[in-house]
Amino acid sequence: MKSWRFLGTNKPLELAEVDEPHAGPEEVVVTVKSAGLCHSDVSALDDPGWMPLFPRLPMTLGHENSGIITEVGSGKIGDTWKVGDRVGLSPVMPDGDAIGYGAWDGGFGPKVRATEANLVALPDEVSFELGSMATDAGLTSYHAMMSVGGCRPGMKVGVIGLGGLGYIGARVAVLTGAEVYAAEVNPETQKLAEEIGLAGVANSIDEFKDKGLELIVDYAGFGTTTSAAVETLAEFGTLVQVGMGRLESTINTYPIIINQLSIKGSKSGTKEDLAALYELMKSGDLNPPITPITFDQIPEALDKLRAGGVIGRFIVTYE
Amino acid sequence: MKSWRFLGTNKPLELAEVDEPHAGPEEVVVTVKSAGLCHSDVSALDDPGWMPLFPRLPMTLGHENSGIITEVGSGKIGDTWKVGDRVGLSPVMPDGDAIGYGAWDGGFGPKVRATEANLVALPDEVSFELGSMATDAGLTSYHAMMSVGGCRPGMKVGVIGLGGLGYIGARVAVLTGAEVYAAEVNPETQKLAEEIGLAGVANSIDEFKDKGLELIVDYAGFGTTTSAAVETLAEFGTLVQVGMGRLESTINTYPIIINQLSIKGSKSGTKEDLAALYELMKSGDLNPPITPITFDQIPEALDKLRAGGVIGRFIVTYE
Repeated sequence: MKSWRFLGTNKPLELAEVDEPHAGPEEVVVTVKSAGLCHSDVSALDDPGWMPLFPRLPMTLGHENSGIITEVGSGKIGDTWKVGDRVGLSPVMPDGDAIGYGAWDGGFGPKVRATEANLVALPDEVSFELGSMATDAGLTSYHAMMSVGGCRPGMKVGVIGLGGLGYIGARVAVLTGAEVYAAEVNPETQKLAEEIGLAGVANSIDEFKDKGLELIVDYAGFGTTTSAAVETLAEFGTLVQVGMGRLESTINTYPIIINQLSIKGSKSGTKEDLAALYELMKSGDLNPPITPITFDQIPEALDKLRAGGVIGRFIVTYE
Repeated sequence: MKSWRFLGTNKPLELAEVDEPHAGPEEVVVTVKSAGLCHSDVSALDDPGWMPLFPRLPMTLGHENSGIITEVGSGKIGDTWKVGDRVGLSPVMPDGDAIGYGAWDGGFGPKVRATEANLVALPDEVSFELGSMATDAGLTSYHAMMSVGGCRPGMKVGVIGLGGLGYIGARVAVLTGAEVYAAEVNPETQKLAEEIGLAGVANSIDEFKDKGLELIVDYAGFGTTTSAAVETLAEFGTLVQVGMGRLESTINTYPIIINQLSIKGSKSGTKEDLAALYELMKSGDLNPPITPITFDQIPEALDKLRAGGVIGRFIVTYE
C-alpha cells in the first residue's frame, strides 16, 4: 500500500510502497476512512527536538484517525470488536506511545494497527471526518471543558479563543446547557458568536467580570489571558489552562486566595472522553469547520498549516 | 467591665468601662480565658481601608478567642451548649460578619457574645492559649493543608515558609503521617527542621524537585515561591496558595499544562476544620511558639507586632 513516509527533520514526506499491516495478538487493523492533519505533524517535520518521539524511521505520521475494522487478531479483543465496526482511534497507548508516533504507523497511510486502548465505537450518526477530528482537537477541548472544568447545565462559562480547540469547547459547553461567554480578538471569528449560541463575545474575558463566571477555559494561553481570567472569575471559580500560546504569565495571586480560585492544567483526554464526545456529536449540532482534502494533498496541506492562518481542520477523506 | 476599645484609624486603643454583654435568643456569653493578637488588628488600627469593616465605633477588637460559656440565651442553642462548657470561637458568622468586627465585640475585653456558628468544643487536653491560637492562624493553616490540599498519610508534601502559619501547616502534615519538606530562608528557623519532624529543609522548594512532591502549600507567597512550586510539583500535583507576601507572580504555564497541575487559593477555614484541629492538638504534639502576655500588655504587644520580627504568637491569658 502507498503511504506518506516521514524520513526525519527537514525532509519532505515521501510517498512510498509499504507492506500492509496485519493484526498481532490483541490487535486489530483499521482501514482508515478519515485522517486529520495536526500542527504537531508540522512540528515533527520541522523541529529536531521532536525526534526522540520517532526512534524508528521511516514511519507514517497521522494521529487523528477513524475508519472500519478490517482484521481482528487473536485474543480477548475479538470479544468486543469485529470486522466492519466503525471506530475512532484514541491515539494514546497504555505505555505512553501513540498511533502516528514511535513504532505505530499512523493514518497518512491507508491501514493502521490499533489495540483495545485506542478503539472507541463511532456512532452511525457521526461522519468519519468528524470522528477523526474528535480524536485530538475535539478530545483535548472536551476533556478541558467537561472532565477537568466540570461544565454542567446552567453554569456560567467563559471560553478564551474561538480557534480550533476553543470553537469545539464553546459548542460543547453550549450543548451541555451552559451560559457561554467568549473572548476572541479576531473580529471575523467574533461574528461566529450568534451562530454557535454564545451569550456574549468580547476582546478580553475581563469584559464579562459582572457575569459571575464559575468556569473559564483558556484555549489560547497568551499569558495575559491567564491573568485576565484570574481577575474575572467568581468566588470558588475554576480556570482551566489548555492553550500554550505564550508560556509565561504574570498573575495576581490576591484574587486566587481571596476568591479561593482553582487553576488547573489540562492536556489531551481519555477514551471515555472520546466516547462521550461522540455521543454529543450524534445530535448533529457540533460541526466545527472542516476543510476536506484528498490523500494526495497531505504534503501541501501541511505546508499551509506551517504558513498559518488556516480556518477549519484539514481532514483527509479516503475513498 | 474594662475593655480595650477601638476608636478608629490611627487612634490608640482606649481602656474603657463597658456594659457586660448578655445572651440574646440563640446566643451565649463566653467569658474569655485567652485571646490571640493578630496582624489584622494592627491593620485595623493603621489602615483607613479597613474602616468599612467597623461601622459601629467604639468597639472591642480580638477575633482569636477561647473561654468558658457563662450564660446561655433562649432557643435551641441550649440543647447543645451549657454554662461551664470550654469552647473555642470560630470567628465567622453565617452573615459574613465576625467576632471582633462590626457589631460583635471581641476578646480584648473579658466577655463576648457568640452563636452556634462560632462555638466549637475545646477538649480538656487543649489549653485555652492553644485553643485561641487555633481559631485563626491554626485554622487557616489547617484548612489549606488538609481541606484544600488533601494531605494524607504517606503523601510527599512541601511547605513554603516556616513562620506562624507554615510552622503549624508543617506540623499538621507531619502528624498526619506525610513526608514533609520545607523551604525557609531564615537560617535560624531552618534549625527547627529536625525538632518538627521534617524530611528536609532548604532555601527554595525547587531543591526538592527530585522528591516527587504531590502537594505544596505556599504559606509565604512571595511570587517566586509560587513559580518555584509550579516547577517542582510532580504530575497531577497541587499547589495551595495561602501567603500573600507579594501579590504578583510570574509563572510558567508549561508545567501546569503538561503535568496537569492544580493551583488552589485558600483562605480561613470552617468550624469543622477547627474541631478537627483541636482533635489533632489533643495529642500534645502540636505546640507552635506562643508568647504569653497579660490583658494590660495588649497595646504594647500590638506595637511590637507592627514593628515586626515577633517570633511566637502573642496570646493574652485572662485570670
